[in-house]
Amino acid sequence: MKLELQRIGIIGLGLIGGSLAAAVKSRRNSIKISAYDTDQTALRRGLGDNLIDVACDSVQEVADNSDLIVLAVPVNSAKANLIQLADFKGIITDVGSVKAPLLASAREVFGDLAQVVPGHPIAGSEKHGVEAADANLFTDHKIILTPTSDTRPEVVERVAQLWTSLGAMVLMMDVQDHDRILAQTSHLPHLLAYALVDLLAVENEDLAVFQYAAGGFRDFSRIAASDVSMWRDIFISNKKELLAAVRTYRARLEGLEKLIEDDQFDQLEQVLSRAKAARDYFTSINDN
Amino acid sequence: MKLELQRIGIIGLGLIGGSLAAAVKSRRNSIKISAYDTDQTALRRGLGDNLIDVACDSVQEVADNSDLIVLAVPVNSAKANLIQLADFKGIITDVGSVKAPLLASAREVFGDLAQVVPGHPIAGSEKHGVEAADANLFTDHKIILTPTSDTRPEVVERVAQLWTSLGAMVLMMDVQDHDRILAQTSHLPHLLAYALVDLLAVENEDLAVFQYAAGGFRDFSRIAASDVSMWRDIFISNKKELLAAVRTYRARLEGLEKLIEDDQFDQLEQVLSRAKAARDYFTSINDN
Repeated sequence: MKLELQRIGIIGLGLIGGSLAAAVKSRRNSIKISAYDTDQTALRRGLGDNLIDVACDSVQEVADNSDLIVLAVPVNSAKANLIQLADFKGIITDVGSVKAPLLASAREVFGDLAQVVPGHPIAGSEKHGVEAADANLFTDHKIILTPTSDTRPEVVERVAQLWTSLGAMVLMMDVQDHDRILAQTSHLPHLLAYALVDLLAVENEDLAVFQYAAGGFRDFSRIAASDVSMWRDIFISNKKELLAAVRTYRARLEGLEKLIEDDQFDQLEQVLSRAKAARDYFTSINDN
Repeated sequence: MKLELQRIGIIGLGLIGGSLAAAVKSRRNSIKISAYDTDQTALRRGLGDNLIDVACDSVQEVADNSDLIVLAVPVNSAKANLIQLADFKGIITDVGSVKAPLLASAREVFGDLAQVVPGHPIAGSEKHGVEAADANLFTDHKIILTPTSDTRPEVVERVAQLWTSLGAMVLMMDVQDHDRILAQTSHLPHLLAYALVDLLAVENEDLAVFQYAAGGFRDFSRIAASDVSMWRDIFISNKKELLAAVRTYRARLEGLEKLIEDDQFDQLEQVLSRAKAARDYFTSINDN
């Protein structure tokens, strides 16, 4: 393994894969990028927009051209890709929103996790596809890496350096903590937003109700415009943590309903105030 | 009653009352504005920022100086103000997010609703207070009026004209429809957002979890930064419609949980796609 990364492979050239390519081209221009996607149009677009150097015909061809491979595919497609990479000796990382299933698949394929560092950029957009690629999508954003005890330290270091050189902030986290915390902060809000928008659509077939929805609804529901198959996969692959979070959430919601039902002005105000304080704290630590 | 409104009174000089005053000053400068607020600081700020002409010491003083009074107080404070306005002969309107309780209170105080036109600007902000007043808060935004059959037509016309002259779009709606639809499109999303932020805060006492929350969470939770006592009042005063909406929502959420639990990829994708289509439709009809 060379000291300096010279060849990166990207499997899946969507918003995240494309933005990663754009960030590398903008900040680490000497690195050669090979990419594969099941969608030929995405690869042609990537070449045309000068995001990638080589459009590969297979995962194997990416492996032959790369020191490090980033899986940027929906969570449930990663395992098939790992199987195709069984003989790859370089570094493997990914950008998925759920980490335990990837680790389990990688352990199954490779026997150990010496060369595997799961990663999760806390960045995204309701846009998708390589055409929305943004070289600054990760700038000043957090990247969570969840290496295990059998991941080689220099492998972790190499992946961390890559992200840092692209302007991101790298955090290390235990994989179970990651999946539990992200279930609460990301997967649950997405599920709640999808459920609300669907409720409105189903209860009001002509969608006229959306005429009366205001900015609050827009903010709340923006995440329900996210890529459908990606979120379907996230929900199902993180089902254990997500369903636990939903159950806790429903209990909390029922508590609020009871306070409303019983005209408990003071207690209701206490809960709302506590939430507002937490939200204000969130704003204070997250300016971007 | 004069043909042209010359004197407007505002009870409650917060974000909405202050923005209304600012909009009148900016577009209907000949109108004299009197205001009352239980908070003297708000009135001084209103005078200092040239939003109002007269800071009154009482609701009665506002009544003596006005042809039309706008109640811009939390929903549950409106009844006390209406009682103080029992002898007022001019037009009364309001800006509250729940309409049935106001109509009931007004009918109790005045015997009929000849002079009363409830109103609800579909505009707001997570900011609050007169210091956040914005002369363009209502520009191109919808204002829903819910007059009843015993409201005098010229009274409805006068209030509609006022809002139109301030750049807003006026819609008429049945009061029950208003409270049901707004429960779904506004009150429920706010309740869901408060519950989520509170869940995160309570489950993670050190609030470190908020470090890992990203843009989706920010969008989702922005509305949980709204004014607490205002939302407490809205939730409780629209409890019938809101609790019905929450119950339907919980059932829908349980349906999604079941699809996730059972790995129903196709059905889950169908629901998410339907929601995304509805959200995309909402975006297409609401550019501002």
